[in-house]
Amino acid sequence: MAVGNSPFPVMPPLAGVRLGSAMAGIKKPGRRDMVVIELPASATVSGVFTRNAFCAAPVSVAKAHIERCREQGQAPRYWLINTGNANAGTGKQGLHDAYASCKAVAEQAGVAEHQVLPFSTGVIGEPLPMERLLAGITPALASGADNSQAWQHAGEGILTTDTRAKGASVTTKVSDGSVTINGITKGSGMIKPNMATMLGFVVTDAAIEQSLLDRLLRETVEASFNCITVDSDTSTNDACMLAATGTGAAIEDDEDIAVFRDALQQVMTSLAQAIIRDGEGATKFVTLQVDDAESRQEALDVAFTVAHSPLVKTALYASDANWGRILAAVGRAPVADFDVDRIVIDLADVRLVEEGGRAAGYTEAAGSAVMAQDEITIRISLGRGQESATVWTSDLSHDYVSINADYRS
Amino acid sequence: MAVGNSPFPVMPPLAGVRLGSAMAGIKKPGRRDMVVIELPASATVSGVFTRNAFCAAPVSVAKAHIERCREQGQAPRYWLINTGNANAGTGKQGLHDAYASCKAVAEQAGVAEHQVLPFSTGVIGEPLPMERLLAGITPALASGADNSQAWQHAGEGILTTDTRAKGASVTTKVSDGSVTINGITKGSGMIKPNMATMLGFVVTDAAIEQSLLDRLLRETVEASFNCITVDSDTSTNDACMLAATGTGAAIEDDEDIAVFRDALQQVMTSLAQAIIRDGEGATKFVTLQVDDAESRQEALDVAFTVAHSPLVKTALYASDANWGRILAAVGRAPVADFDVDRIVIDLADVRLVEEGGRAAGYTEAAGSAVMAQDEITIRISLGRGQESATVWTSDLSHDYVSINADYRS
Repeated sequence: MAVGNSPFPVMPPLAGVRLGSAMAGIKKPGRRDMVVIELPASATVSGVFTRNAFCAAPVSVAKAHIERCREQGQAPRYWLINTGNANAGTGKQGLHDAYASCKAVAEQAGVAEHQVLPFSTGVIGEPLPMERLLAGITPALASGADNSQAWQHAGEGILTTDTRAKGASVTTKVSDGSVTINGITKGSGMIKPNMATMLGFVVTDAAIEQSLLDRLLRETVEASFNCITVDSDTSTNDACMLAATGTGAAIEDDEDIAVFRDALQQVMTSLAQAIIRDGEGATKFVTLQVDDAESRQEALDVAFTVAHSPLVKTALYASDANWGRILAAVGRAPVADFDVDRIVIDLADVRLVEEGGRAAGYTEAAGSAVMAQDEITIRISLGRGQESATVWTSDLSHDYVSINADYRS
Repeated sequence: MAVGNSPFPVMPPLAGVRLGSAMAGIKKPGRRDMVVIELPASATVSGVFTRNAFCAAPVSVAKAHIERCREQGQAPRYWLINTGNANAGTGKQGLHDAYASCKAVAEQAGVAEHQVLPFSTGVIGEPLPMERLLAGITPALASGADNSQAWQHAGEGILTTDTRAKGASVTTKVSDGSVTINGITKGSGMIKPNMATMLGFVVTDAAIEQSLLDRLLRETVEASFNCITVDSDTSTNDACMLAATGTGAAIEDDEDIAVFRDALQQVMTSLAQAIIRDGEGATKFVTLQVDDAESRQEALDVAFTVAHSPLVKTALYASDANWGRILAAVGRAPVADFDVDRIVIDLADVRLVEEGGRAAGYTEAAGSAVMAQDEITIRISLGRGQESATVWTSDLSHDYVSINADYRS
């Protein structure tokens, strides 16, 4: 199940970027489960990673390799991604396997080991099936191409319980010509990122120096992947990567930075929302907009408290205009000295709550009409300040339980 | 669905305490939905209430009436409880209705208005059906009795989505004779208390002065009702009341206080656990024991993070020894500087995690054997200090979704 149509977009080729994939039998036979993304030597690369204390072996290795590349003044040249196995909770063996995977790619591609970054997603705690993974590297490298289909195959090759590949592409004009940003992402459960999402891989042909690229990634992730939640569970493997290949226009002056930032935010937000639209068992795509908070953190706290409430999520699933549950969730948010008389809650354009209780003009019919829709906006004004936050979430359905009672993640 | 057998216990009579109930048609016709508990004029009464900012009208009125009784040196004499309607999110009308309900009981019983404390549970945001509620007061008062059946009827008359009445009784010897503690509770969803639970009503015949009674209630609730969670949602109406009628032995010296405290803790813990055993859709009763934490708060944070994880809860439902999800949940708990190599996780007597990954001796067969049981203990040692906490929770099943997608709470 998924909310809305999201056909995979056409992805323009990016010079020097090739995407290969293979069916290595890691997840199950007959489906793409390994992806190799090749970047040119001119690329600059930034990454943000999970804050889960039990971070997976590939997260540790990717961070170490990025560090090493920076020390050596070399570009990370290959992103090696497998699904079907997260290589998390696997201790020393897991680290050994992640390093060995990078080494195998490096040898076949003729780059240094630290120029290969590993990413894994799937079941936690099982050792990586190294024989099958290593056997998949040759065909994955050999299939490398820069066309839109290669991007789509890569998008398919990183999925776990996702029902569809997720991509976004924006081309925008800057002073020195135009730049393109292509991205793919995966994730539909264990989604409450903290610092990054499940897996996101974004590449632009723009030329952007390292510290600016780092900042742009951090800022755009903050308002996209860090503002979505399916089930409040942060994964051990979350990572979002951004590469600027430098083959296209340079992004240097303030105006170009602003234009590029907007385009990048558009790609990031579109990818993040695609995860929620494909949330496990999702039948609704819900936007929580909290306004008039004292701080952005306060606005986020309220939004996530409502977004995580199983009772709100089941009411959304039932298309039940159960505003009492929204009110109860807002009321238990970790905010000191709430003045409930100042809180206003709207369901789309229908006022639910004001002056501490049900809004005078509210009718069940009006509320139900909104709740029957697939895409719903809940707007909560706290009446305390000027800050806002927007969070996206899905509902809690029978299918969510089925998927997670059946699937070993 | 509910976990384990929990027959309603035999409740010894307490002098001067009478329990009446009625079928007022507030929830639905033909079931008890109103309860009146009468206390003697010698009673001392303590209460703890929800910290939800949108607290319900009866919570505000009960607190105000307790305050008034203390100022006047009078005992609260009646607890008036209805199910089927929470009188929450009802603004000024809700307050008016709560006061009017108390007034009606006061007039018929010949006490002051502030000697009546109101409690409501059920759907949020609908006005109280006052005509039916007021009509129920006379039969509820008339049916007042002190026998065990009256306690059981009262236990039934406060339920919402609960599948069974929940009671506990302990009689214990103290220096001046013996004392009895009887309690009933309700709740099975919207359960993540903060300061109190859904509704709990506990009465003892002991004689205990006000400040000691306040302290004993606070302390025993902290380790019982405040350590349970079904779905992380704190209600607008949570309240736990404790009355000491003073008709029995006095609890004054340190030794008696310790004995009484143990007995009270036993009643509170038994009632709190009964809520989890009857958690919405529950098929498992799960104990989360966190040890070797730096502080009790840290231990509670880890326990609740695991207890609230939808992925852990669905794995429990599936009887799937998916220790990776437990590890991932522990890893995202809000604890600074986790050293994952020191964390040890046991499922009953089976070691799951040590040294940052799966324990060396772990076998899937051993894990699955534990997960197949109805009652499961997960023990997490953080290796950071001396503090502990125990939290009880249930699993997340299809029935939880069905109950909450169908029920208007």
